[in-house]
Amino acid sequence: MLAARIEHAAEIRGAAERIAAHVRRTPLLPADFHDGLLVKPECLQVNGSFKTRGACNAVARLSGQSPRPKGVITHSSGNHATAVAYAARRFGLPATVVIPSSASPNKIAAARHLGAEVVTAGVTFDNREQVAEDLAGSSGLHLVHPYDDWDIIHGAATSGLEILEDAPRVGCVVAPIGGGGQVAGLALAIDSFGPRIQVFGVEPELANDAARSFAAGELKSLESDPSTIAEGVKSKSIGQRNFEVIVRRRLVAGIVTVSEQELEYAIRTAWSAMHLAVEPTGALALAAWLQRRVPLGTRERPTVLVLSGGNFDPRQTARILLGGAA
Amino acid sequence: MLAARIEHAAEIRGAAERIAAHVRRTPLLPADFHDGLLVKPECLQVNGSFKTRGACNAVARLSGQSPRPKGVITHSSGNHATAVAYAARRFGLPATVVIPSSASPNKIAAARHLGAEVVTAGVTFDNREQVAEDLAGSSGLHLVHPYDDWDIIHGAATSGLEILEDAPRVGCVVAPIGGGGQVAGLALAIDSFGPRIQVFGVEPELANDAARSFAAGELKSLESDPSTIAEGVKSKSIGQRNFEVIVRRRLVAGIVTVSEQELEYAIRTAWSAMHLAVEPTGALALAAWLQRRVPLGTRERPTVLVLSGGNFDPRQTARILLGGAA
Repeated sequence: MLAARIEHAAEIRGAAERIAAHVRRTPLLPADFHDGLLVKPECLQVNGSFKTRGACNAVARLSGQSPRPKGVITHSSGNHATAVAYAARRFGLPATVVIPSSASPNKIAAARHLGAEVVTAGVTFDNREQVAEDLAGSSGLHLVHPYDDWDIIHGAATSGLEILEDAPRVGCVVAPIGGGGQVAGLALAIDSFGPRIQVFGVEPELANDAARSFAAGELKSLESDPSTIAEGVKSKSIGQRNFEVIVRRRLVAGIVTVSEQELEYAIRTAWSAMHLAVEPTGALALAAWLQRRVPLGTRERPTVLVLSGGNFDPRQTARILLGGAA
Repeated sequence: MLAARIEHAAEIRGAAERIAAHVRRTPLLPADFHDGLLVKPECLQVNGSFKTRGACNAVARLSGQSPRPKGVITHSSGNHATAVAYAARRFGLPATVVIPSSASPNKIAAARHLGAEVVTAGVTFDNREQVAEDLAGSSGLHLVHPYDDWDIIHGAATSGLEILEDAPRVGCVVAPIGGGGQVAGLALAIDSFGPRIQVFGVEPELANDAARSFAAGELKSLESDPSTIAEGVKSKSIGQRNFEVIVRRRLVAGIVTVSEQELEYAIRTAWSAMHLAVEPTGALALAAWLQRRVPLGTRERPTVLVLSGGNFDPRQTARILLGGAA
């Protein structure tokens, strides 16, 4: 364990240096409504999500390899696709992204705008990973997995490093969990640099595979595409590497779930009481906090909520806003 | 002029010290879509607007006077009312706020929640100032004017100080102008600490009194309550002190106007491309920038837009967001 801890610590420090010129150090903002609550608004990150951290770390690594890869490919319905397209452009590698044809048009447009080749024909939620793997095999492009990849995990961990620097007395860090890249990264950062801090993952009840995996001690999967509004955490199960960190090594204190209604209330709270235009996934941690499923935090031991992204759909946003206008 | 400059500089430094424990140092955030554009998100300020700065400075001053005032009173349809209620609570003085009965219920609720006595009976946009002055006279409460007050102006100026510290090479600062407190404050901060930086004020075409005053060199007023969605800049004319700084001393480079449609586009841009949930007034500077009516900024000489507030109406925001969803 000690050897692993030292290795992860070095990788996280390395990631922070590698990506510094390409990402933003997001501020840590206090909430007006509770003394002892801070948020890490990764919706203010470059491209509007924490995914830019991992993608830049993975692509920076690849671009330094000899021989240099011909390009990168990934599968994602959203923020990871944009992040890989951005990272590839910054490091001068071609990028291909495999996006389900049902994905929101603005996410497809964002990846194209950043110069990526977008493949949507015949791509579904179920076959996207296979399509990307097949294309990687046939084209010689390097597959950058959205979460089951140590470089992605160590890149995501850099926000944990910033939290520890900006709030050394933090008692608890809460973040959304889909494939588990962000939560595994935060857990490793804290295991390396700030022990005795609790890390919680939050997912929708409708996509509760991580909670079930955590409870059972073995990897559980969703049966089908979950109907949650939290698009960013729809992956069927957490990755192998993420499972190792989160479940097997128990570097996470718990996985909690929230209902869709609780999530919508949290989205409205983020917008109207924190003035941060988050996407649904970006409000998961706040939803758990508002329902008192994670420690509330005190001035001496604050709780930090990671608001992971801000790339919302305007129509959905309008509906959620009106849902709260009595 | 030199004596005035030295005096204002000292007052601004004093305000920054006086309010430090009660306001937030907002970050300076780069925009993804233009290299050389930064925003100062005062929507992330305590209570969601820059008004907290001036109110804390004015109330801190009053609370230190001997004899101590019985309390404070102000008139406002929004953010200034909340800010005075907050400041009064922080400094232990009773607060009364005079709000037109037509104001949005959540702004009235915000002031009440902070412990202020709210007077709405018989109050209109036209008579609110007179009602507050009469009540101040009869009750012995000290009137804290929303903008025509040096303590309010010097408090607002503290965001200019932060901009100069965080972006010493800034070339241009753009902010909304209603009564002129914020723009006068920024202009004085820049005159004192960072000369050769241009300051622009932005107002709706429908409430263009400041632009007309600036062009004519004399104080012009609106005839009636303007129908702009930018609630925060509806005052009929800028104040006397603000006129002195902005028009007579010409510490401002220009006042530009935007249409309601241009403003709605800017609101959508702030929400979706910057992930900041601003209120209409908070997007005025961005609207002017998007229409190229102010310098765009370069990496060497960036432009800073002050996004002044985030207390939006959910129904109105839903309508505006849908306006862009083709």
